[in-house]
Amino acid sequence: MTTIISPVKIAEKNTPVTGNGSKGKMMKALVYHGPGKKAWEDKPMPVIKEPTDAIVKILKTTICGTDLHIMKGDVPTVTDGRIIGHEGVGIIEEVGSAVSTFKKGDHVLISCITSCGKCEYCRKAMYSHCEKGGWILGNLIDGTQAEYVRIPYADNSMYPIPAGSDEEALVMLSDILPTGFECGVLNGEVKPGDTVAIVGSGPIGLAALLTAQFYSPSEIIMIDLDDNRLEVSKTFGATQVINSKDGKAVEAIMKMTNNKGVDVAIEAVGIPATFELCQLIVGAGGHIANIGVHGKSVTLHLETLWAHNITIRTRLVDTVTTPMLFKTVQSKKLDPQKLITHRFRLDQIMEAYETFGNAEKEKALKVILSN
Amino acid sequence: MTTIISPVKIAEKNTPVTGNGSKGKMMKALVYHGPGKKAWEDKPMPVIKEPTDAIVKILKTTICGTDLHIMKGDVPTVTDGRIIGHEGVGIIEEVGSAVSTFKKGDHVLISCITSCGKCEYCRKAMYSHCEKGGWILGNLIDGTQAEYVRIPYADNSMYPIPAGSDEEALVMLSDILPTGFECGVLNGEVKPGDTVAIVGSGPIGLAALLTAQFYSPSEIIMIDLDDNRLEVSKTFGATQVINSKDGKAVEAIMKMTNNKGVDVAIEAVGIPATFELCQLIVGAGGHIANIGVHGKSVTLHLETLWAHNITIRTRLVDTVTTPMLFKTVQSKKLDPQKLITHRFRLDQIMEAYETFGNAEKEKALKVILSN
Amino acid sequence: MTTIISPVKIAEKNTPVTGNGSKGKMMKALVYHGPGKKAWEDKPMPVIKEPTDAIVKILKTTICGTDLHIMKGDVPTVTDGRIIGHEGVGIIEEVGSAVSTFKKGDHVLISCITSCGKCEYCRKAMYSHCEKGGWILGNLIDGTQAEYVRIPYADNSMYPIPAGSDEEALVMLSDILPTGFECGVLNGEVKPGDTVAIVGSGPIGLAALLTAQFYSPSEIIMIDLDDNRLEVSKTFGATQVINSKDGKAVEAIMKMTNNKGVDVAIEAVGIPATFELCQLIVGAGGHIANIGVHGKSVTLHLETLWAHNITIRTRLVDTVTTPMLFKTVQSKKLDPQKLITHRFRLDQIMEAYETFGNAEKEKALKVILSN
Amino acid sequence: MTTIISPVKIAEKNTPVTGNGSKGKMMKALVYHGPGKKAWEDKPMPVIKEPTDAIVKILKTTICGTDLHIMKGDVPTVTDGRIIGHEGVGIIEEVGSAVSTFKKGDHVLISCITSCGKCEYCRKAMYSHCEKGGWILGNLIDGTQAEYVRIPYADNSMYPIPAGSDEEALVMLSDILPTGFECGVLNGEVKPGDTVAIVGSGPIGLAALLTAQFYSPSEIIMIDLDDNRLEVSKTFGATQVINSKDGKAVEAIMKMTNNKGVDVAIEAVGIPATFELCQLIVGAGGHIANIGVHGKSVTLHLETLWAHNITIRTRLVDTVTTPMLFKTVQSKKLDPQKLITHRFRLDQIMEAYETFGNAEKEKALKVILSN
Repeated sequence: MTTIISPVKIAEKNTPVTGNGSKGKMMKALVYHGPGKKAWEDKPMPVIKEPTDAIVKILKTTICGTDLHIMKGDVPTVTDGRIIGHEGVGIIEEVGSAVSTFKKGDHVLISCITSCGKCEYCRKAMYSHCEKGGWILGNLIDGTQAEYVRIPYADNSMYPIPAGSDEEALVMLSDILPTGFECGVLNGEVKPGDTVAIVGSGPIGLAALLTAQFYSPSEIIMIDLDDNRLEVSKTFGATQVINSKDGKAVEAIMKMTNNKGVDVAIEAVGIPATFELCQLIVGAGGHIANIGVHGKSVTLHLETLWAHNITIRTRLVDTVTTPMLFKTVQSKKLDPQKLITHRFRLDQIMEAYETFGNAEKEKALKVILSN
Repeated sequence: MTTIISPVKIAEKNTPVTGNGSKGKMMKALVYHGPGKKAWEDKPMPVIKEPTDAIVKILKTTICGTDLHIMKGDVPTVTDGRIIGHEGVGIIEEVGSAVSTFKKGDHVLISCITSCGKCEYCRKAMYSHCEKGGWILGNLIDGTQAEYVRIPYADNSMYPIPAGSDEEALVMLSDILPTGFECGVLNGEVKPGDTVAIVGSGPIGLAALLTAQFYSPSEIIMIDLDDNRLEVSKTFGATQVINSKDGKAVEAIMKMTNNKGVDVAIEAVGIPATFELCQLIVGAGGHIANIGVHGKSVTLHLETLWAHNITIRTRLVDTVTTPMLFKTVQSKKLDPQKLITHRFRLDQIMEAYETFGNAEKEKALKVILSN
Repeated sequence: MTTIISPVKIAEKNTPVTGNGSKGKMMKALVYHGPGKKAWEDKPMPVIKEPTDAIVKILKTTICGTDLHIMKGDVPTVTDGRIIGHEGVGIIEEVGSAVSTFKKGDHVLISCITSCGKCEYCRKAMYSHCEKGGWILGNLIDGTQAEYVRIPYADNSMYPIPAGSDEEALVMLSDILPTGFECGVLNGEVKPGDTVAIVGSGPIGLAALLTAQFYSPSEIIMIDLDDNRLEVSKTFGATQVINSKDGKAVEAIMKMTNNKGVDVAIEAVGIPATFELCQLIVGAGGHIANIGVHGKSVTLHLETLWAHNITIRTRLVDTVTTPMLFKTVQSKKLDPQKLITHRFRLDQIMEAYETFGNAEKEKALKVILSN
Repeated sequence: MTTIISPVKIAEKNTPVTGNGSKGKMMKALVYHGPGKKAWEDKPMPVIKEPTDAIVKILKTTICGTDLHIMKGDVPTVTDGRIIGHEGVGIIEEVGSAVSTFKKGDHVLISCITSCGKCEYCRKAMYSHCEKGGWILGNLIDGTQAEYVRIPYADNSMYPIPAGSDEEALVMLSDILPTGFECGVLNGEVKPGDTVAIVGSGPIGLAALLTAQFYSPSEIIMIDLDDNRLEVSKTFGATQVINSKDGKAVEAIMKMTNNKGVDVAIEAVGIPATFELCQLIVGAGGHIANIGVHGKSVTLHLETLWAHNITIRTRLVDTVTTPMLFKTVQSKKLDPQKLITHRFRLDQIMEAYETFGNAEKEKALKVILSN
């Protein structure tokens, strides 16, 4: 998940461990206790608060790069005591009186974005900006790195999983694949025959790489500083890879494109240098799609780009394409398994954080935690 | 005209006044002689050079803000001896052997953008980047502020004018109206019911204001530092005006929009401060359309905008909408006459430059020069 | 309302007059009793059945052409005892426990289409095909021609009305204006400068005429058999009118369009002859948008149209544009008042049916019934 | 090629064999001599007539289903003496004075559609309706089943072939692949995850099948009466095949789609029965794309479809996607070789017609004729 939160939404109070919610039933969860501090500890089991809520028993979850940022204290909306996590699949344990799509025992895919289905933004398919939802899981309310989780607006924020599905693969549809697809591929308007450059070949860049192939571009050039990741890119479908540490990426791309630049440049890192690179390689009439979470402003070269007929788009994932992605997984057009490199039991989550936190050394992309 | 020129295109050599092109026939023209120097002087009449050329006798022309920049020496592609001007209507004097749409005596509208109709960009309706054309008139080749002008690729770079048309009004279709429409309104994706803000109410901002009304937005807010221009905006259809000199424009707009920001922000000035303003007022899911010619880079606030589902577009006018605009003028949906404030004879052009160069004092929008 | 209903949806049982729903409180309503029979009679007041329901006291309602069809027995899904009507504005009387947008006392606009906001079709903004809603009001469940009505999925099927709004005008947003706009104008892709022909100048054709002007077409040609309606069309913005009773409408339009045909042909009648006319007048690359409710198949001239790059679209109104239309009414870009020709008290509804049923003679467009 | 011709275009006069065009130089060509009569015979070599013409030596050509129709006398615009053929690759032999893209010796791909690049339709990327071009090759003017051919508007009607390209494969880009792609896939708006049905698995249906895969639909169901063709479909990427001779195709598709119908139905035959089938299987909100050349009108079931939010599109191929298709061939996303089943020398063309005319028996898709 990559998001910020509007200050008008009010965070759920963190239930004290000494409380006795749900008649005192307890569960295990990964809890944030301020910068650098986390613990796998007892927490009260969640309970239905609104008629639109559901309680889900987690079967599989994962760790997101954003969770690492949370742990460093970079996400101020996350406070001491919060259960982390916004991805996962599970089984419905209980539903509120107004939930009509799901019933106890159903297997579900949890979306990282909660959608009320009623507000102006939800009606415009911009769930990321839902007036009551958006990215709240593992941020303003307790999340999925736990044995159980409460999902508000259950009908609009989860998807049914048919029997026989590969549930591990589907965890990738909670966040990373819709993010790569919506923010990178759709926002970049990738077309058959296009030349696409993806700057950054971490998990999110790879998610863009996988889903860009839905539209049959001629070339997909991956750019990164890490040779291992670039090697992985090739097995994921990259047609060219460039290690940009020599400062010659622009030159290389201009050569590949007959000095025209690329049709689509996808930023999948989130720092000024990579956004700068996108501006230097995009061709006239081209698109820059930003996926990266930026902590600083960047320089926009309007002194040249004003006349280049360029489109730049930003987006917080809306997860409106989850049903489409679901279909592509079912029909084997998309294989999310490729992103999974490590597996742990849910109670090994502290170890999983260790591995994921050292992704480069561990050659980790996404880890799966099974309950 | 607001453009830069690719260095690969080669400028036409300036014909020396002492030459005897066209069997020595001479005409009067406005000639650039380096920064701050211009003259209404004798020049050889243009002649057909390619089978796709036409020679046009100018009936009416105008002066563009870009011409003022040229006169200051700001446009390095324009060299000593160049006849200026890229707008106008005229009568066909002579056509090359491959010109099939026009014949001697036809009245024509000259486009500021020359289009070969054959290259990759022309086939994609991106005439601004035509490999052999683009903005070359009054820049790389002699222009329209003269008694006669040579128009390359005549069939694709001019439009026939039916008898009985208001030719003065049509001069506004050479550049300013397609620019406001394509770069501002179309790039901003203005829709019925939208709230639109246009930053800058000079001629180009007003052209955007006029053409934005094609799509029936609910509100069009004009922002400028000049009260007179804002008053003019009201008569052109602005629903709200804001003088931003008190630094409270953002506050005012947030109040007007219930803190949501505008759907479309159109930049019609070309400096960092106005582009900054657009970023501050655009709402989630909104569009920023840049019309301004920027001489410097700007700061892009990706640290907030990355999550706001924003689209930013730049464009050098392609003049692909000229036929559509033509129809709206013929059917009185668009009245370009509104932009014309002053009229001169062509041989009074030095005086016209004086007036247009002091636009604020003279309350000048567009001037018409008649031959 | 113009719709058919999927057989899988189950109609609400008609509450017998002798019942004592809502603790026996009674109200007056217009009830269908089989072909040709209707009565303004006592019925039990509606009660909340689901947590997502609201009970609305009707302030203003109207009669739709579809209601006339129902009364003739043409709509088999409507059974004896049903309260008719699917348009109106009112005041919230009571809400179910899961309704979050509205509270008692709020003024609301009722949509003719009920939307659950959760199903596959609602998420695709195709509310007309909502798995639990769609056109059910005054069809499968009791409707709005009554003192009170129960609205299912209240949050997604009504819109708040700000204080000071013209509520009479807003009744036109329940059905007729979104129908003309979505099925006619949007489906026809009307653009600035276009030539549009609307076949049929009854209320629905006029609704298309009013909303087509959002996009500034150059010409809007209205075609009908009734001179009075054509006269009305002129005051609504038609640029040309054609009485087609002489069989020369095609000839006239080909003359007007320089033998190219129109860009957009909108069918607003619902019989083979008018759809045939649309096929004969649409130009190459043009659009045919069908609004009419057809009882029979038509002949499609693929023997010529296969090569004419034509788009034909059908649509049951989704009312997804209601918020947009609302904004255009608030900002005076759209004046729905124009459609209202007659006013009655709600208890005069039998008389109102009389008037509306003789629309041509009475020169009636839409009638307003006030409670 | 599948097209009709506007009566306003004037056919080239057939040069009598006894003439001495091109200073009497002669060549061999396949000539139509009325229904059922054709000959491989001597014809004068073509010569440059306009400055925009080019003369091309044919390297490879093919036979189209339309050529078979011509031979039967079904295409009245084709008259006795016409050289047939509208597909091929060749070498430039000579160019007119206004041709700037090509020079003698260049290898070129000839488009079945001739585009002037100047008219209203060409500027709208609707080359099929070019006022001076469109489908004229092998129809109104002599075509490509000859040793040499004259190509009007050479710059806009041919594409350069880079050295080392597979020229046999590129012949498929003259007509069949852009037709399947533009008329079937683009007009059907195929999206990732879609269920697509293609009715007809002849060469054109297979071209749609190949290019539909650019957009990663989940299912592509091929429907035909011929088991061999259906087998071929599977090797081309069909996920399901249905032999419709048992009259149960609709039933089978409804079962496959959970009674929802398909997202896209592509008609690739051209008879009423197959268009009827498309109407029966398309789901609410779906698209019908017509590729077939229809000789008769069809029945359009507006009595049900009026409420199903359907889009129907027709199109004569514009060949505007040829550059895109070219890129997909170069990058191996598309393999047109698959369509080629038989090869002949150009002077064996009578035999090739024999084979292609018995396609079912010969299991022929496309034949290649090499000069």
